[in-house]
Amino acid sequence: MHPRLTSTPAAATVFTMVLTQGPVSRVEIAKRSGLSSAAVTKAARPFIEAGYLEELEATERTAPGAGRPASPLSIRPEREFFCGVKITHEELIGVVTDLRAQPLVSAHRPLATTSAEGVVSALAELVAELLAADPAYGERCHALGLAVSGDVDKAHGVVRYSPFLQWHQVPLARLAAEATGLIVTIDNDVKSLTVAEQWFGDGVGTSSFALVTVGVGIGCGLVVNDRVVAGAHGVAGEIGHIPVGRDEPECHCGGRGCVEAIAGTAPLLAAARAASGDASLTVEAAIDAAHAGDPAVREVFARAGHAIGLAMAAMANLFGPERIIVTGDVPGLASYGLFEEQLNRSFAAQAFGAAADCRLLLRPRSFEQWARGAAAVAIQQHFTLEGAPLPGLRSAGSEATGATREGSGSQRPRRLTK
Amino acid sequence: MHPRLTSTPAAATVFTMVLTQGPVSRVEIAKRSGLSSAAVTKAARPFIEAGYLEELEATERTAPGAGRPASPLSIRPEREFFCGVKITHEELIGVVTDLRAQPLVSAHRPLATTSAEGVVSALAELVAELLAADPAYGERCHALGLAVSGDVDKAHGVVRYSPFLQWHQVPLARLAAEATGLIVTIDNDVKSLTVAEQWFGDGVGTSSFALVTVGVGIGCGLVVNDRVVAGAHGVAGEIGHIPVGRDEPECHCGGRGCVEAIAGTAPLLAAARAASGDASLTVEAAIDAAHAGDPAVREVFARAGHAIGLAMAAMANLFGPERIIVTGDVPGLASYGLFEEQLNRSFAAQAFGAAADCRLLLRPRSFEQWARGAAAVAIQQHFTLEGAPLPGLRSAGSEATGATREGSGSQRPRRLTK
Repeated sequence: MHPRLTSTPAAATVFTMVLTQGPVSRVEIAKRSGLSSAAVTKAARPFIEAGYLEELEATERTAPGAGRPASPLSIRPEREFFCGVKITHEELIGVVTDLRAQPLVSAHRPLATTSAEGVVSALAELVAELLAADPAYGERCHALGLAVSGDVDKAHGVVRYSPFLQWHQVPLARLAAEATGLIVTIDNDVKSLTVAEQWFGDGVGTSSFALVTVGVGIGCGLVVNDRVVAGAHGVAGEIGHIPVGRDEPECHCGGRGCVEAIAGTAPLLAAARAASGDASLTVEAAIDAAHAGDPAVREVFARAGHAIGLAMAAMANLFGPERIIVTGDVPGLASYGLFEEQLNRSFAAQAFGAAADCRLLLRPRSFEQWARGAAAVAIQQHFTLEGAPLPGLRSAGSEATGATREGSGSQRPRRLTK
Repeated sequence: MHPRLTSTPAAATVFTMVLTQGPVSRVEIAKRSGLSSAAVTKAARPFIEAGYLEELEATERTAPGAGRPASPLSIRPEREFFCGVKITHEELIGVVTDLRAQPLVSAHRPLATTSAEGVVSALAELVAELLAADPAYGERCHALGLAVSGDVDKAHGVVRYSPFLQWHQVPLARLAAEATGLIVTIDNDVKSLTVAEQWFGDGVGTSSFALVTVGVGIGCGLVVNDRVVAGAHGVAGEIGHIPVGRDEPECHCGGRGCVEAIAGTAPLLAAARAASGDASLTVEAAIDAAHAGDPAVREVFARAGHAIGLAMAAMANLFGPERIIVTGDVPGLASYGLFEEQLNRSFAAQAFGAAADCRLLLRPRSFEQWARGAAAVAIQQHFTLEGAPLPGLRSAGSEATGATREGSGSQRPRRLTK
């Protein structure tokens, strides 16, 4: 089994700083982290010896007379691979990524059943297929991340409740570890995608951002002061259950006027059917009708955009994120253009004062990128001490790093299955 | 001038741990903070020498055979005093507190004007009166905290905008420092009260809580992962502008259906006047009428409770705080009993899953306690390194400490002016 390199907070800080902000010199790491130069050198050494980090050629960037030029430390991204799988009620979507969570290959597997046994069995086959794609994966992939919608107890590896899978108290991490032989981390799917954005995506360079996902449900991941908000009672980011509605029917949660009861795929479709008078309208046909200019169906999408915009404003008024990343699953994405304008307008109208200065970024994220989120959680779990703060990751080098990472999640992996 | 003792993160950690959780032994500090015993001893020494900390008699609590008993470190609360003033558009409310933010004396001063010059001049008189109450205050009070409603730039000491005072870009910290000769810290009033709860009140022992204030406005302070949420653009905690209303008129913020446009004192009074048909009804008379059983006026308060309960549920769904402390100014408090039941019911109905497990604590807080909040911010500013995390403060000793602090904010200071 893979030896654990990050046994001290300094080791975790140095490694994750190179991973998420590198290449970066030891001097710069010391400056950003508050660690002494000696501590940085000591912390980096085991990673260099184990082949995770390497010293690049000295750059010319240091000022004249500033002593010997700094040799930046850089990740060797293919030193270790990670497997990530998103579990939906219809299929498994898996990827193998490098250390920077860049997907290298992907594969899908439809689910014949949503029973825990059936899903874990399909998962083992999918992982075997993915790892067989390159001998290096089999040798140097030790960890698997799983992303599941619902209430996930990451610490204990248990899916407490997943409505779409109809799972209650499923010890998924243990079952998957037994079936695959890998070290398994599980997390809520929206939180997983948030971690991927925080470490490797549009969240790099800010200590405070939100991710809003539009689709079957309306979800949200929050990062405040550099940490994903988990919720004291395990619930957080439930933007879909902010009551912004006027006279909408009851939500499945028992509340009234919830965003999700207006803008989730099912109520959106129901409203489009009612508006068009066509009781068998599909989501795709509703989107087509709206694009073709059907005013009643367009109004349905505008109302959804209004609800999401108000909820995002409520969220921004409460915690003032620097950025909000808006993404969605397939129908969510396809319909996004239909409500983007209304969403922006309603957000601007309801955001309080400077909360309106928050940047809204539309970022398509395929299910493969959700699987990448699962891998990112496995990477984070692997190289940080649980719960330990990561000093210096917060505000360091935001501008430059943010720019170089822009769009880093959009590279496409090689697909194994269609 | 007072020498700055907290020049290192370790010094800040050790001192604040004794301040907020003490008496506590060096061994226990090391355990909770992750610092070495030697580092704790080194960090504590200057505070002992300067008379801020003292070693108590060794207690008998250590296990038999566990070596020499530990001598807990304790604060000497009267080693230094702090002045705190809440500024409203009608009056100044000031206190002198000890190191633990316990108010010792209080005084009020009505404001004849809300011009910055007029307020600062009255402030100087009030501070002089407070410090004259005991020779020790004049000798050992060096810092003044000011709490102002509105958009306050704490870092630069500037009130960017205060609607009630009609202030724009007032450099209050500099003006107050020139007028009083003290080191001045300013902050938003709700954030100040949140800091007082976090360090010395009902927030001790939890890393995540919210404070909701009900009155002229509906405000909120949020603590997530041990830190007050500031907002990337300076806006956070604006629970009053969550759009939960159905057909309410526009809010002063430009939004629609805002909680504050329903449950703030002015719209509440307007609705009570409309319901009772008495256009000159006062807030006090409305409260009396509701207590006397007037169904139309009672309904007005119930609607306010419903709006606040929904907004609190939206906030809990997003953050999942462990506790929510509900407080208010005078009319807010007097009417609280009138909407408490509806508030609790609406919160429970809209809170998502386990978010409903959040404890709601009703805590009356007088304006003197808001002034204490201002002093707490001055204390925090004085003994921490700006922005430095305080490891170990987060989850340590929550049960015991929480219990001993319960109600600690309710002691009454000696009043200088009626």
